[in-house]
Amino acid sequence: MGLVNTAFKPEDLLKLRNVNLGIGHTRYSTTGISELQNCQPFVVDTLHGKIAVAHNGELVNASALRKKVMRHGVGLSTSSDSEIITQLLALTPPMEELDTPDWVARIKNLMSETPTSYSLLVMYKDVIYAVRDPYGNRPLSIGRLVPISKLHSLGAGEADTEGWVVSSESCSFQSIGAKYYREVQPGEIVQISKNGLKSLSIVPRPEGDPPAFCIFEYVYFARPDSIFEGQMVYTVRQRCGRQLAIEAPTDADVVSTVPESATPAALGYAQQSGLPYVEVLCKNRYVGRTFIQPNTRLRQLGVAKKFGALTDNFAGKRVVLIDDSIVRGNTISPIIKLLKEAGATEVHIRVASPPIRFPCYMGINIPTKEELIANKPEFEDIAGYIGATSVRYLSVEGLVSAVQSGIESHGKDEKISSSTKTTRHGHCTACLTGKYPVELEW
Amino acid sequence: MGLVNTAFKPEDLLKLRNVNLGIGHTRYSTTGISELQNCQPFVVDTLHGKIAVAHNGELVNASALRKKVMRHGVGLSTSSDSEIITQLLALTPPMEELDTPDWVARIKNLMSETPTSYSLLVMYKDVIYAVRDPYGNRPLSIGRLVPISKLHSLGAGEADTEGWVVSSESCSFQSIGAKYYREVQPGEIVQISKNGLKSLSIVPRPEGDPPAFCIFEYVYFARPDSIFEGQMVYTVRQRCGRQLAIEAPTDADVVSTVPESATPAALGYAQQSGLPYVEVLCKNRYVGRTFIQPNTRLRQLGVAKKFGALTDNFAGKRVVLIDDSIVRGNTISPIIKLLKEAGATEVHIRVASPPIRFPCYMGINIPTKEELIANKPEFEDIAGYIGATSVRYLSVEGLVSAVQSGIESHGKDEKISSSTKTTRHGHCTACLTGKYPVELEW
Amino acid sequence: MGLVNTAFKPEDLLKLRNVNLGIGHTRYSTTGISELQNCQPFVVDTLHGKIAVAHNGELVNASALRKKVMRHGVGLSTSSDSEIITQLLALTPPMEELDTPDWVARIKNLMSETPTSYSLLVMYKDVIYAVRDPYGNRPLSIGRLVPISKLHSLGAGEADTEGWVVSSESCSFQSIGAKYYREVQPGEIVQISKNGLKSLSIVPRPEGDPPAFCIFEYVYFARPDSIFEGQMVYTVRQRCGRQLAIEAPTDADVVSTVPESATPAALGYAQQSGLPYVEVLCKNRYVGRTFIQPNTRLRQLGVAKKFGALTDNFAGKRVVLIDDSIVRGNTISPIIKLLKEAGATEVHIRVASPPIRFPCYMGINIPTKEELIANKPEFEDIAGYIGATSVRYLSVEGLVSAVQSGIESHGKDEKISSSTKTTRHGHCTACLTGKYPVELEW
Amino acid sequence: MGLVNTAFKPEDLLKLRNVNLGIGHTRYSTTGISELQNCQPFVVDTLHGKIAVAHNGELVNASALRKKVMRHGVGLSTSSDSEIITQLLALTPPMEELDTPDWVARIKNLMSETPTSYSLLVMYKDVIYAVRDPYGNRPLSIGRLVPISKLHSLGAGEADTEGWVVSSESCSFQSIGAKYYREVQPGEIVQISKNGLKSLSIVPRPEGDPPAFCIFEYVYFARPDSIFEGQMVYTVRQRCGRQLAIEAPTDADVVSTVPESATPAALGYAQQSGLPYVEVLCKNRYVGRTFIQPNTRLRQLGVAKKFGALTDNFAGKRVVLIDDSIVRGNTISPIIKLLKEAGATEVHIRVASPPIRFPCYMGINIPTKEELIANKPEFEDIAGYIGATSVRYLSVEGLVSAVQSGIESHGKDEKISSSTKTTRHGHCTACLTGKYPVELEW
Repeated sequence: MGLVNTAFKPEDLLKLRNVNLGIGHTRYSTTGISELQNCQPFVVDTLHGKIAVAHNGELVNASALRKKVMRHGVGLSTSSDSEIITQLLALTPPMEELDTPDWVARIKNLMSETPTSYSLLVMYKDVIYAVRDPYGNRPLSIGRLVPISKLHSLGAGEADTEGWVVSSESCSFQSIGAKYYREVQPGEIVQISKNGLKSLSIVPRPEGDPPAFCIFEYVYFARPDSIFEGQMVYTVRQRCGRQLAIEAPTDADVVSTVPESATPAALGYAQQSGLPYVEVLCKNRYVGRTFIQPNTRLRQLGVAKKFGALTDNFAGKRVVLIDDSIVRGNTISPIIKLLKEAGATEVHIRVASPPIRFPCYMGINIPTKEELIANKPEFEDIAGYIGATSVRYLSVEGLVSAVQSGIESHGKDEKISSSTKTTRHGHCTACLTGKYPVELEW
Repeated sequence: MGLVNTAFKPEDLLKLRNVNLGIGHTRYSTTGISELQNCQPFVVDTLHGKIAVAHNGELVNASALRKKVMRHGVGLSTSSDSEIITQLLALTPPMEELDTPDWVARIKNLMSETPTSYSLLVMYKDVIYAVRDPYGNRPLSIGRLVPISKLHSLGAGEADTEGWVVSSESCSFQSIGAKYYREVQPGEIVQISKNGLKSLSIVPRPEGDPPAFCIFEYVYFARPDSIFEGQMVYTVRQRCGRQLAIEAPTDADVVSTVPESATPAALGYAQQSGLPYVEVLCKNRYVGRTFIQPNTRLRQLGVAKKFGALTDNFAGKRVVLIDDSIVRGNTISPIIKLLKEAGATEVHIRVASPPIRFPCYMGINIPTKEELIANKPEFEDIAGYIGATSVRYLSVEGLVSAVQSGIESHGKDEKISSSTKTTRHGHCTACLTGKYPVELEW
Repeated sequence: MGLVNTAFKPEDLLKLRNVNLGIGHTRYSTTGISELQNCQPFVVDTLHGKIAVAHNGELVNASALRKKVMRHGVGLSTSSDSEIITQLLALTPPMEELDTPDWVARIKNLMSETPTSYSLLVMYKDVIYAVRDPYGNRPLSIGRLVPISKLHSLGAGEADTEGWVVSSESCSFQSIGAKYYREVQPGEIVQISKNGLKSLSIVPRPEGDPPAFCIFEYVYFARPDSIFEGQMVYTVRQRCGRQLAIEAPTDADVVSTVPESATPAALGYAQQSGLPYVEVLCKNRYVGRTFIQPNTRLRQLGVAKKFGALTDNFAGKRVVLIDDSIVRGNTISPIIKLLKEAGATEVHIRVASPPIRFPCYMGINIPTKEELIANKPEFEDIAGYIGATSVRYLSVEGLVSAVQSGIESHGKDEKISSSTKTTRHGHCTACLTGKYPVELEW
Repeated sequence: MGLVNTAFKPEDLLKLRNVNLGIGHTRYSTTGISELQNCQPFVVDTLHGKIAVAHNGELVNASALRKKVMRHGVGLSTSSDSEIITQLLALTPPMEELDTPDWVARIKNLMSETPTSYSLLVMYKDVIYAVRDPYGNRPLSIGRLVPISKLHSLGAGEADTEGWVVSSESCSFQSIGAKYYREVQPGEIVQISKNGLKSLSIVPRPEGDPPAFCIFEYVYFARPDSIFEGQMVYTVRQRCGRQLAIEAPTDADVVSTVPESATPAALGYAQQSGLPYVEVLCKNRYVGRTFIQPNTRLRQLGVAKKFGALTDNFAGKRVVLIDDSIVRGNTISPIIKLLKEAGATEVHIRVASPPIRFPCYMGINIPTKEELIANKPEFEDIAGYIGATSVRYLSVEGLVSAVQSGIESHGKDEKISSSTKTTRHGHCTACLTGKYPVELEW
């Protein structure tokens, strides 16, 4: 429970010094005591010993699978679909009376029961299986720990380490001195053991279905230095900004960003448009959790409390402000007001992604359809509603093109055997278009 | 986790204001993170809805049952046999496809799988089942909340409460204003619902087996104001002291107690022997967790740090010191030394229970056979080992007689139907005699 | 802040391993953030180096002294009179420009400024001064750490320790393996250094004033195994019980106690009256901080929640219940009700001290005059008010006689030079009689 | 203690709802229990009532003043020079026996005792005095809370607020909805009361001494949206970057920044040099306190763990990396290595400030002379030492010119009376040049 830094004490980590493999999972914190039971990995004891399961994603047919598990007589401790996955792996009939059960068969059986979305790590004794659902909806990357002795001299009495690491985002590899190796492919089961990395199988999608990697990982979720499909997220965002400058040019003096996530798109917009890039806001690190707002003054300030205006850079000027997305529409409004009060003559909002209109059933926490600004009557006059001089969004086609153009040219991954590379690229744009990758069951 | 007072915050309890039934369980704290998963009650979701189970005791055939549950394909989250009980209740075949399943049949099925030891509370929707194993190894008492309006005027806008409460020990009833009603009988299933209390069934023991209520509840565990088998624990302990004075008389000046649990036995010994009762030790409330003992001085003091000597009451006198039990033999020794240094001319130890020689497999945490002082060579000269002038124990026969003599005369419980009263009395003395109530499976 | 066990961590104590002297002070916890600043000892840096001061008591002329210190230009950080003592020691004119200032002269100067009440420890470099005010209102005892090598073999590489300890109550000595040596006399300044213990001076009281040791230390505050004026507190309390049996005999069947502080008085009452002593209540260790009382039932139970009735010992009998004092009158009432509901036919309350009628200005936290039951109209019919069959108190004369009769016979302390023994004994009974030892200044 | 968000609970703030004035102070956290006593504001009770003092800075003659206060007989509770200020205000002779003492006279007396460095807030009853030392070494700004009703409609039943706020940095005003008004001038005493803002006095410097505002506030400490001497810090830093491009041009492909503090200088360098500005590093928010580094791998990574490389932006290119300062030289080295390993062909370091060579005695925590990289032999070949292709620093003259050129053109402050504007501008560059604004006393 809590942030990694507070959840694990130094003495906890010291216990792991001589450990050869392990899995963990960090998840968004929500409130309430029951949350604890949803901490991952799920660990259960089976006839063959313990298995541990970490799951990123959300099963589209969780409800039906839950009933199925309970009908077998299993009492479930949590409301999590990750527990369902774990129990399905435990009970897969027939329960073999073998010393080492066929976990790969059980994982394939699980994959036949649910199409998406899941990236999994399953640990049993001295083996870890890394699994990505056939649609590849959630990311999963493999990194390599090169022997340290090739890079540095070792500490006194210190053994060398090398090996493999798996993570949702490749950006995490650098923090531990590992190198990006490749992605787990949609439908792939990869085995990691003392014998190294081995691709065991690729479970196919139904004939004709393209992959459905979540396009919002590019737009918003992922860290900019992560790599998906052979390309850096930062570069995709920069292309989105360039594309936005083409689709929605602006007659203005300067281009800027809502720091920090929109900065690559803003730089892309500036490069394409030829307008100078300046900073107009600096983040106020000292405003954290605002626990109390005792009066109108502080309530009205809202999110603007978190920013300082760099007045000299825009006073008396027309500003194009790039944001990565507008979900509810209530955070950009105080920022626009702040800029205008500080002297901006015009504030044009350019959004480096299309409007979100539909819910996600594959693990992304999106507000209800009613809360989305794009579904409200106010969207008719969104500029007036948020106080901007003008508002323009990137088109769905523009976004898909900005994403996929980089894959064509850069996305060659020589480490994957040619048979797996036949997979066409494809992305889930359900929250923008309402077209879901699989039929939704309820 | 933690003491009840810290585990529950006022706002947690406020949520329960309008709740009509509930179960909880406090257990000894041990160390380590896994403990959290063993918190009770166990709550699992089944096809028919949630059940919650609180369990006091330890299944003698836990290991075999654990395998059985896992062979069915259930992954177990904890090492607790209480989870096994919960999952057995969830999976009892055939899983009826009914709106309300037959929980009583499932509980009976569970009871047919394991003879002892368990006292259970099982909650499902608006019903609680109170269950005691056929041997009655662990206690379970029923109390009644009389309508408050019969006793006091109600607070403004306050609804009256009445109802039933169930607890291991009847002493807890007074703390919430309830009255002792009766015990759950060995093998009995009692149902508590909005329709009141109802005895549903009494599952019999194998022909010829007597009940096996843990005799150490009388000797040590229970609070002295609790009632078992119709008699107050305090009175049984006083009888043990009287019996001890008969079996092991002493030529001494004063009788005293190791406060506070041995006080009733000491008063009984004083009454029977005619020797005056005095206090020789007062508890030092300010020595709690002694987290550090930086030198020989404090290490040598040991448990004596926790007591102050009431010198005037025994200096120059021969003392009979009553203790309730001697398990490892390393706590009484510093106390004897303390009394002698403070002026006692003789210190005779009289123990109000027989020596413990055997392990308990029914839920009581007793040291290993090797750690028990009664199994060590030093037991040959126990007085010399602990520094006492003499040491004598109560006999097993004396203990059983002190316990059972009170049941004959006082133990009539009119609230139980006559058919259930035919049960003969009997007590588990396994830790003293090695005779276990059922054959042990491994 | 907090209990000693939580305020000091093991690593804090480890730092003290090679330390030769030190002072500390535990005080009742009150609420509020300002409390932290009142933590003792007070440590201030002076021209000559740091001094540390621990103070037990309350200055009767605190208000006038506070003004005096502030008039000199000192800004005070707290509301504590202990800070005033510390600053008075720091500023005593003339500030000598010496390497080692004359602290004894400064302490005497302090004692000339305020008559009572204070027991002090003042630490400066490698010396501690133990000081008791001329009236001896608060206790202060000296203990001796005998060389451990005389008692036990040392641990490997462990240096021996011997030395002196000072404490309000002698009971604390045993917990660290020290022996009671003697009391600091009223007005005495004792120096402890590497050269051992040395009595430096005894500052006299005004001609004709007797000492004024707080008589409530005997009645209630002190632990029963502490020694004051050469006698054990337990024994004084037992004598109070005997005296009470003489002054207030009762026609009853059994004598008992409100555990645990009244037990010695109850045993004394039983011995003197010839009535049998039994236990009627057992403490409920599991009711701690009762943070919430959601309904009438629990509110009405009040303090009775904290006790279990040992029914067998008194049902159908007339009970004499000894209490040590009745301050507000609202805790004994639910206990009487509990005993009556459990079957006592009569409950006679005998109080082993006189009624408290007056406030204390010397450090004891007594309720305001208006809150004291002895000053309320209900005191006219106190038995009716609290629901007792009868109520009787010990007389002031009876209490003084029970206290002082033990000093005459046992109170010889050979360790104090004869000149100091001329001090007559005398006790502060201000809270009972309104006669304060010194004129009160406001 | 701790961050503001954890030090104050909502209930603490609710108590302040109807409060009209107050002061606080946040300071760098260090370790150890004594820190608590150094928490500000210092509050002491004087003959005239309580005063509270918050102090930013460090007295150059603290040691002499400390002796002076102690020689007067004041015991000091802390090692803080802020307590000395507080006690000096309390004891300033003669202590007037007036109802309201002349605090302004006392503040002037304090200012005659110590030349620098201090910015103070002194609160007494319903008045706050804002004071800046005659050299103006530490900043102090005044902001204005405009009536909320002029901006927004009030909440139900909510009173309007207007008034004055004072802060070290003007950036804090926006977070509470206040507007920057002006700076407190060097030597100025400003009074804030219910009668508004009033400049009471300007205590002069010695004839010929220029002001000595800390130039490192511009270089490093201050938030970029703060205003000093009429100019925005961001703009000064941008000018430093431009000046650096003139002094130290580079033959390279791209200009970038060590995020985030060096970004304005990097943008200035890019503008001046004509080289394109790109981002090469993204901050890893998930690496916080790194509590354990169990092996060589993680130790070698060092600060590089906190950054992700945006490879696409610089692979195969020559990078000019702007940093704001290099103090010890051990943080830039792993970053250079990271960039080179990720494909940068050259990494030229350009530092937007001169080398730090001398200690600061005026409140800034600078490493010892020996730790400063500029004083080490390695500085001879600093590029080789840190692994850079080349290293260049901004000159002292360049820095002073970048700072002061903006004051000439923009620094007119109409709100200050003309007599105060005669003050020449001047800056403390002691850490760069060793020329301290006043003679240092020891």
